[in-house]
Amino acid sequence: MITEKKKTIMVGQSGGPTAVINASLYGVIKEGLDHPDKISRIYGMIHGIEGLIHDDFMDLSETLTAEELEILKTTPASYLGSCRYKLPDDLSSSLYPLIFQKLESLNVGYFLYIGGNDSMDTVSKLSCYGKQHNSDICFIGIPKTIDNDLICTDHTPGYGSAAKYVASTVREIVLDASVYCQKSVTIVEIMGRHSGWLTAASVLARKEAVDNPLLIYLPEANFDFRQFSQDVKAALDRQPNVIICISEGISDHNGTFICEYGNTAGTDSFGHKMLTGAGKVLESYVRNQFGVKVRSVELNISQRCSGMIVSLTDVEEAAQAGREGMSAALRGLSGKMISFKRTTSSTGEYCCNCTAEDVAKICNQEKSFPADWIIRHGTDVSSEFTEYALPLIYGEASRKMKQGLPVYLYRKTTR
Amino acid sequence: MITEKKKTIMVGQSGGPTAVINASLYGVIKEGLDHPDKISRIYGMIHGIEGLIHDDFMDLSETLTAEELEILKTTPASYLGSCRYKLPDDLSSSLYPLIFQKLESLNVGYFLYIGGNDSMDTVSKLSCYGKQHNSDICFIGIPKTIDNDLICTDHTPGYGSAAKYVASTVREIVLDASVYCQKSVTIVEIMGRHSGWLTAASVLARKEAVDNPLLIYLPEANFDFRQFSQDVKAALDRQPNVIICISEGISDHNGTFICEYGNTAGTDSFGHKMLTGAGKVLESYVRNQFGVKVRSVELNISQRCSGMIVSLTDVEEAAQAGREGMSAALRGLSGKMISFKRTTSSTGEYCCNCTAEDVAKICNQEKSFPADWIIRHGTDVSSEFTEYALPLIYGEASRKMKQGLPVYLYRKTTR
Repeated sequence: MITEKKKTIMVGQSGGPTAVINASLYGVIKEGLDHPDKISRIYGMIHGIEGLIHDDFMDLSETLTAEELEILKTTPASYLGSCRYKLPDDLSSSLYPLIFQKLESLNVGYFLYIGGNDSMDTVSKLSCYGKQHNSDICFIGIPKTIDNDLICTDHTPGYGSAAKYVASTVREIVLDASVYCQKSVTIVEIMGRHSGWLTAASVLARKEAVDNPLLIYLPEANFDFRQFSQDVKAALDRQPNVIICISEGISDHNGTFICEYGNTAGTDSFGHKMLTGAGKVLESYVRNQFGVKVRSVELNISQRCSGMIVSLTDVEEAAQAGREGMSAALRGLSGKMISFKRTTSSTGEYCCNCTAEDVAKICNQEKSFPADWIIRHGTDVSSEFTEYALPLIYGEASRKMKQGLPVYLYRKTTR
Repeated sequence: MITEKKKTIMVGQSGGPTAVINASLYGVIKEGLDHPDKISRIYGMIHGIEGLIHDDFMDLSETLTAEELEILKTTPASYLGSCRYKLPDDLSSSLYPLIFQKLESLNVGYFLYIGGNDSMDTVSKLSCYGKQHNSDICFIGIPKTIDNDLICTDHTPGYGSAAKYVASTVREIVLDASVYCQKSVTIVEIMGRHSGWLTAASVLARKEAVDNPLLIYLPEANFDFRQFSQDVKAALDRQPNVIICISEGISDHNGTFICEYGNTAGTDSFGHKMLTGAGKVLESYVRNQFGVKVRSVELNISQRCSGMIVSLTDVEEAAQAGREGMSAALRGLSGKMISFKRTTSSTGEYCCNCTAEDVAKICNQEKSFPADWIIRHGTDVSSEFTEYALPLIYGEASRKMKQGLPVYLYRKTTR
């Protein structure tokens, strides 16, 4: 019987939201729907692997209309909900047979997980366990993170849109901060615990080589208060209104986060240090040192979840990663993450192709911002970065509007 | 000789930036250029009246190309720079003859000032002094403020775009805050020292009647911590992820700003209390009271200066206000502010006409959010507000993009 060969897709989203993680979900669903001969149903886990464990999932093949699918593509945040759930390192944990039993009872052939580092860890462990127990379920990871810190890929879906938001917002903050003639310093705090990719994107806000933001500090370079003081003085000598961009995770040579000089910091369920307030710490510092007008602006969650200025390149690549992930699973690949390879067309234009890389070597690794792209003793980034980043923010994704506001897709929650 | 009758325009911008204050400047310039028989030159004061006093102005009729003028229309913040300069209350101050001497030496016939309350005070004083001394210079104010707190006008240019930004951003924050299954409270702090118009716009983020933001607090209603605690408890009982929108200027029955419970507050040059941190104060309060995950988000300066999601209605009305202001001056009116009257077309659609109101009765007044539009004991706003606000955020203004980023117009600064 042919129908017996048909399998179910189980797809989930995990980790922090991005502007395009739903475009990847859209890609998975579209590719699945394109193969009715092989796919019987498409299930979505509610709140990632945690949802599966608690039997919380929905039938995506039945609930979404074609129009809703198109709206999903440009809806920010995670339509299926997310989690920060780490599977046990010990594969002999009783959780694994429980998960596989659930997957098998639902006739799952393809498990697709859209997320960052920690989510790839989930894909890696499940595919490892599956291999050990001769399961024929294919486990594929689809990358997403605004941090751009996954290895073995040129970049990650989500980064382009976040970078575009940061560059555009900083450009507007520069305009706003320059309207008064009094001297001022504006400190913009950008997301990034350990990696400076997103903060580096603030350099794209410049209109010319020497322009605001005059100073850019990444977590990859040690932050030194005395040097900072000299940097700010030199900047104020050059221009009355100075804009400084910093990563939330900048730290000094002792490894102490700058935010820790301001307040106490807790940890999240992965043991990550919870960071807030490096901008506020430096705001006080500059006010005391220079007596000028100072403001700190924390870009906050809009930098990851805004649909206002989304990169068309990013949306299309995110959808493509979803499609390619599903396609790889259909070809029988498992334990892989979809990765981007950058190429150049014969006319010199940016191109991007997908490959599949071993997820085991990707998970729990972080790709730092290249040391040789950090210049001017850790206060700026080089033109190599600008060349790298510009194609990723290219193009404007449009979204449906109604009564002056964006139309997004919401999952019906049952309580 | 006809040329002798030609006069010069002197135009300036004052107060905080908005997304459309340059659209009003565009309107003034366009209307001026349309009357070459009456207008010889268009001067722009750099940093408002302060620039005039220090002979800092530019020739706008010579510097801007037609293409640049179009870019100016969608450039946020104040192209000419701004100031917060209050003219002396005593009209016998020596500053007044100095200013009038400068205006007359430049053959100024029309003085246009784009700004809020404090800027209308400048227009009022100058026109008063002019009248006293039989000057034939016409002084006209063109309103702008994201706060929407000017009296004698249905609304003010700048408000529609800021309201659209707030509604859209809160809608996205709601999406972002709802991805995890753990209970959480997100507090969004919105601009508004004394008036809640902008915070009220967060209600537009709702998709249905009972939806996030579940609680909305305006400065016009007394804030009570005990009541707040009950409100949050009831909201958390209803929904796992609660979004609360507050004005920066909420205060308790003693008149103490909530932010003052967190830190010390200074004052700006107008004697306004400098406010920060009501969101942070409530964040700590909720965390201590309920032990749930809490985050506070200060929308910060992007709510006034973002060009990402600008209301087309607002841009066109701002440009119209500039044109009508210039036109009123050409007709010989003085001591007036351009005001908006809302009407309804025969098909029931929103219309807006301009009139001219006495600036003397407008300046230094504030239009509060209507008390009867505040409902549910100060935790929500009524549908009358939604009907009022929706037409103001209607339509999408487009802007020129290059290499993935918005193209804005920058004034060349000489140092």
